[in-house]
Amino acid sequence: MPDIPHASLGQALFTPRSIAIIGASDDPTKTSGRPVLFLRRAGFAGAVYPVNPRRDTVLGERAWPSVAALPEVPDHAYIVTSTELVLDAVEECGRAGVRVASILANGFSEAGPDGMAREARLREICKRTGIRVVGPNSLGVVNVHLRSMITANAAFAEPELPPGGIFVASHSGSMIGALVSRGKERGIGFAGLVSVGNEADLGIGEICMATLDDPAITGYLLFLETLRQSAQLRSFALAAAARGKPVAAFKLGRSAAAAELAVSHTGALAGEDDVADAFLKDCGIARVETLEGFIECLPLLSRMPVAARGPARVGVLTTTGGGAAMVVDQLGMRGVNVVRPSDDTFRRLADAGVNVGHGAIVDLTLAGTRYDVMKAAIDVMSSAPEFDLIVAVAGSSARYHPDLAVRPIIDSKDGPRPLVAFLVPEAPQALALLTAAGVPNFRTPEACADAIAAAFGRRAPRAIPAQPAHGEAAPAGGRLLDELQAYALLERIGVPHAPVMAIEVGQALPPVPLAYPLAVKVLHAEIAHKTDVGGVVLGVADAGALARAVQTIAHDVAERRAGTTVDRVLAQSMVRGLGEVLIGYRVDAQAGPLVMLAAGGVLTEIYRDRSLRMAPVDLDTAHDMIGEVRALQAVAGYRGKPPGDLDALAAAIVALSGLALLEDVRVAEAEINPLIVLPAGQGVTAVDALVRLA
Amino acid sequence: MPDIPHASLGQALFTPRSIAIIGASDDPTKTSGRPVLFLRRAGFAGAVYPVNPRRDTVLGERAWPSVAALPEVPDHAYIVTSTELVLDAVEECGRAGVRVASILANGFSEAGPDGMAREARLREICKRTGIRVVGPNSLGVVNVHLRSMITANAAFAEPELPPGGIFVASHSGSMIGALVSRGKERGIGFAGLVSVGNEADLGIGEICMATLDDPAITGYLLFLETLRQSAQLRSFALAAAARGKPVAAFKLGRSAAAAELAVSHTGALAGEDDVADAFLKDCGIARVETLEGFIECLPLLSRMPVAARGPARVGVLTTTGGGAAMVVDQLGMRGVNVVRPSDDTFRRLADAGVNVGHGAIVDLTLAGTRYDVMKAAIDVMSSAPEFDLIVAVAGSSARYHPDLAVRPIIDSKDGPRPLVAFLVPEAPQALALLTAAGVPNFRTPEACADAIAAAFGRRAPRAIPAQPAHGEAAPAGGRLLDELQAYALLERIGVPHAPVMAIEVGQALPPVPLAYPLAVKVLHAEIAHKTDVGGVVLGVADAGALARAVQTIAHDVAERRAGTTVDRVLAQSMVRGLGEVLIGYRVDAQAGPLVMLAAGGVLTEIYRDRSLRMAPVDLDTAHDMIGEVRALQAVAGYRGKPPGDLDALAAAIVALSGLALLEDVRVAEAEINPLIVLPAGQGVTAVDALVRLA
Repeated sequence: MPDIPHASLGQALFTPRSIAIIGASDDPTKTSGRPVLFLRRAGFAGAVYPVNPRRDTVLGERAWPSVAALPEVPDHAYIVTSTELVLDAVEECGRAGVRVASILANGFSEAGPDGMAREARLREICKRTGIRVVGPNSLGVVNVHLRSMITANAAFAEPELPPGGIFVASHSGSMIGALVSRGKERGIGFAGLVSVGNEADLGIGEICMATLDDPAITGYLLFLETLRQSAQLRSFALAAAARGKPVAAFKLGRSAAAAELAVSHTGALAGEDDVADAFLKDCGIARVETLEGFIECLPLLSRMPVAARGPARVGVLTTTGGGAAMVVDQLGMRGVNVVRPSDDTFRRLADAGVNVGHGAIVDLTLAGTRYDVMKAAIDVMSSAPEFDLIVAVAGSSARYHPDLAVRPIIDSKDGPRPLVAFLVPEAPQALALLTAAGVPNFRTPEACADAIAAAFGRRAPRAIPAQPAHGEAAPAGGRLLDELQAYALLERIGVPHAPVMAIEVGQALPPVPLAYPLAVKVLHAEIAHKTDVGGVVLGVADAGALARAVQTIAHDVAERRAGTTVDRVLAQSMVRGLGEVLIGYRVDAQAGPLVMLAAGGVLTEIYRDRSLRMAPVDLDTAHDMIGEVRALQAVAGYRGKPPGDLDALAAAIVALSGLALLEDVRVAEAEINPLIVLPAGQGVTAVDALVRLA
Repeated sequence: MPDIPHASLGQALFTPRSIAIIGASDDPTKTSGRPVLFLRRAGFAGAVYPVNPRRDTVLGERAWPSVAALPEVPDHAYIVTSTELVLDAVEECGRAGVRVASILANGFSEAGPDGMAREARLREICKRTGIRVVGPNSLGVVNVHLRSMITANAAFAEPELPPGGIFVASHSGSMIGALVSRGKERGIGFAGLVSVGNEADLGIGEICMATLDDPAITGYLLFLETLRQSAQLRSFALAAAARGKPVAAFKLGRSAAAAELAVSHTGALAGEDDVADAFLKDCGIARVETLEGFIECLPLLSRMPVAARGPARVGVLTTTGGGAAMVVDQLGMRGVNVVRPSDDTFRRLADAGVNVGHGAIVDLTLAGTRYDVMKAAIDVMSSAPEFDLIVAVAGSSARYHPDLAVRPIIDSKDGPRPLVAFLVPEAPQALALLTAAGVPNFRTPEACADAIAAAFGRRAPRAIPAQPAHGEAAPAGGRLLDELQAYALLERIGVPHAPVMAIEVGQALPPVPLAYPLAVKVLHAEIAHKTDVGGVVLGVADAGALARAVQTIAHDVAERRAGTTVDRVLAQSMVRGLGEVLIGYRVDAQAGPLVMLAAGGVLTEIYRDRSLRMAPVDLDTAHDMIGEVRALQAVAGYRGKPPGDLDALAAAIVALSGLALLEDVRVAEAEINPLIVLPAGQGVTAVDALVRLA
């Protein structure tokens, strides 16, 4: 074979000059017959080599017996053989110097112990030969501009795919076809699509990173089933943000999370989806919830700066009150409130000849469905300082008379505020006009509100600080600290706790310099759930009661927990505050360190009322978290009640989240439950703590 | 004019033989020029009379100077004049014997005192002349089959509207155009559409009732901005159910309701949207939340029997795991859980040659995307007793190869369980095949889940029992009972309360046959918020403390509430239970009597955790309500806690809701807050009560 320079990863993956289809079938109705068919039908200009040792021709083309027999080393090989033949094919490609292979077959890590062993062998081949792999379980890699349809997804039989700027990376292979066909119908084009499969080698982060400098790509859509290779995903998100290329994710699993209970005393802070959600937000990736919002959201994300802190401020103007109200409702359900124009804005509207009522929605009505009225209204709204974003809603006229209410949106698109359009009727031509003009536009009120809420929910991506804890999994069996040791750690990081002292069982009671009443608790690193074993006595009023409580605990715990000897108990002054919260810390195997705030008690579990962030957090973020826990309204001065010390609570959250930065102690999990919130100015106080080291 | 028989309301409204357009413009670009244009373009076969006293011709047709000058009395007149000329036009139509007039102009009840006076005059004309009116603010009435486009909605410039079975009644005039254009795109046809406007005379209920026997109409979609003329709406819903014609509603205002706090001690039980929601459900009307779910839901509602009590049981099978998971997620977020097939079903699948994993979703994968596999899988799933409904999800093949995974859905559509389809790619031809075959089908996972959740949430419509309270508004100023009188009413309806006695202020303390400790409260009909005026002393331990408490209350209340003399206080044994709830009753001006259950306390307000029904309710419904209040898990034996007496709670809800049936006492509002829930078998006990008579 001639000695040609190796392609870069990005080239081999996404702009290959030559493609081998290994295991290509002669039968176009078979899955393994599709890639050659689709490549030819699309008119890919590079070399395509069907490899099939059992045939001389495939679909009328010359078939090659092996990779080694090819006249050049192909940049990209798509292995469409049965599962059993995959590893040999990868091995052969790797030895031949193929840079990237994509693998169609399933039967790897998702398929039990045998499959996991197979996937381990695959990784070994990658490591040894240097080949990089997409999949297994990959329906392929498509570059729409290049027409390199390296895919077995039936949707790519599509005669004409409109090229565009969107790059898709998807765990689901079927979704790349669904997105491209739905995009086509919507007049939205794609630059490329990758079905990433199991991510045994190349993950979404690395795949997207390899394409980041492709000028044809303007933004990224990630269809996620889970979170894998998170460090690379974060690196990609940071690099994408630096280049001004927005990234949005649609992640499955929201409902599973909603069904489980996140807050548990044993330390499971939050479900898989909650963790992924916190991670994506921390990376500046916008998460959408609707399929059409996913396809439609990128132009809005491109135009919206990452939102400043504080509530979203959306202005709505429309030619149809009912149509606009659908968007307003959907926004409200997502926590985005529409802002009524200021008196000054109403005055400016009137001066511009726009006569409207003074409701929150600026409704021009049927009578105002005219170019000049709509244009004047948009220009006034778009320059009003009380809004961050303007939503223009056009009614039935949009279908056959886009000149009336759609054209003015296009002509005012470069105003001071981002402007988005929702069209109430089916109006594909008008939507296409808006798309061509670069105006974010939406076909349904749900997608419109979804994308807007995702845009406002986006934060600036965060680089990972030097975090000793990052990437450390939290193995189930780490060492538990006893409560006294846990308080020592809290003291070190700056979280106050109620005064405590240890008391030896079976010895004379020492002087107790604590304010009564006391809580008395068994002190034992192996006992996490003290109440369950009779290890807690509350409301101990004096020294006599204390002596009795020590006896009782020693006796009860020994009886209920066979083999345990209680040597020490902890005495602690009881504290009454305005409310109780739980703050927790955990290092997730995929996402890294997390911090959580929840209100205490059984109702919090029932309502699943908590806020989660990647750790560490700063004070502003901690205050945001407090604002997200609804039950904390009750300690924030709700309905005339005295307010609690939320500044001290924020400081405690920051301090706990700083466990991620400790270099000498590696904490897998920590939970303060409850942390007592005292009246404003009086601080917070931990009265129980659980710490598990890595 | 010749003496011809009058048309019935239904005929004149929806199948008119002759139509007058009063105020028809010669300018087709003007709103008032559209109806004649649209009627002619559509090819309406009846007579069309443009009426315009200032012109001889309109759009090339003869124009008539007045209704009186017409050669016949038209069945239906559409008045498209300016607001000022409307009343004279209605008067003229009424005198001429026109049966129905629709009115385009706004400027009526929505437009301040002048507009309200104008609307009152309109009603007077209707009453006096017998004419019935659609609107004002009506964009018209369309019969698609008859091509009677009596409308100014720009969407009806549509060249070819596919006829179908859906009848739309909408508060928003723009929406009739949006629905018909979106339906056309989706291959969904309409029988008729009415923009009902202000419902000054004819309301949605009466309009729909008038069309109910039209055989072309198979189901109803109601686009609601508010609830009006509810009694007629209920009558229509009952009649529609009796004819097997499903009714679905999309109602605006969900987010406004979400923003306000429903539970208030002053008696406002729930927001406007909550009341409307309870009312619609009570009428058996399915409420959807997405625009596309609205358009797509009727075939499913036609096929789904009204669900039995108990959780929904949905089975899902698919050729693409990711695509199906989107539906499963959306179902989960709406509280509908997907059921894993039974072992027997998995066995039957294997026997039929369908090899799948044993997850909750039956995933045939790309390899199983074949007619025979899909058909066999559907037939097994559809006959499995553990499901109420089967969702079949087809992947990319649906776009160009519907024979693989879509055709088997059609061929198995008449199986034992209702079957619905969601197609992951854009696949309009396949959707059209499904629609033509009568298989409920959905274009997005959100609409699919929305319609399924609405179908499962539907109840059998309820006829109104003889309810003296029904339709009685609750004027703000009804007479309040004092607490002792309120307890007397509770005793009568069978809600237990803690033992009480009245004590005269300034007299010697009588014997107190109550168990201490006591709560002592001012007893005064005008004081609803006793704590606010110093009218409550809790924890009164003995007779001495009781005497002091009586003095304290008399003094404090007189001081804080100038002009009040406290003659009596109420002493009541304090009761401790497992939890506290609020039960309330209110007669809503539009919807009628309502009963509400909420958990007590500040967190309930924050979480808006309550259940609402039209009153009266039966025991089963009361138990359903208990199941809907999440906080009540805490008194239902949650996590090993002792369970409360939920049977007694249900009985108390039934009893309170029975206020609607009392003939001699008309209660506007009643609230028991708190009602103490005791351990199972020990009942419930009211410890405060507020009753306002009508």
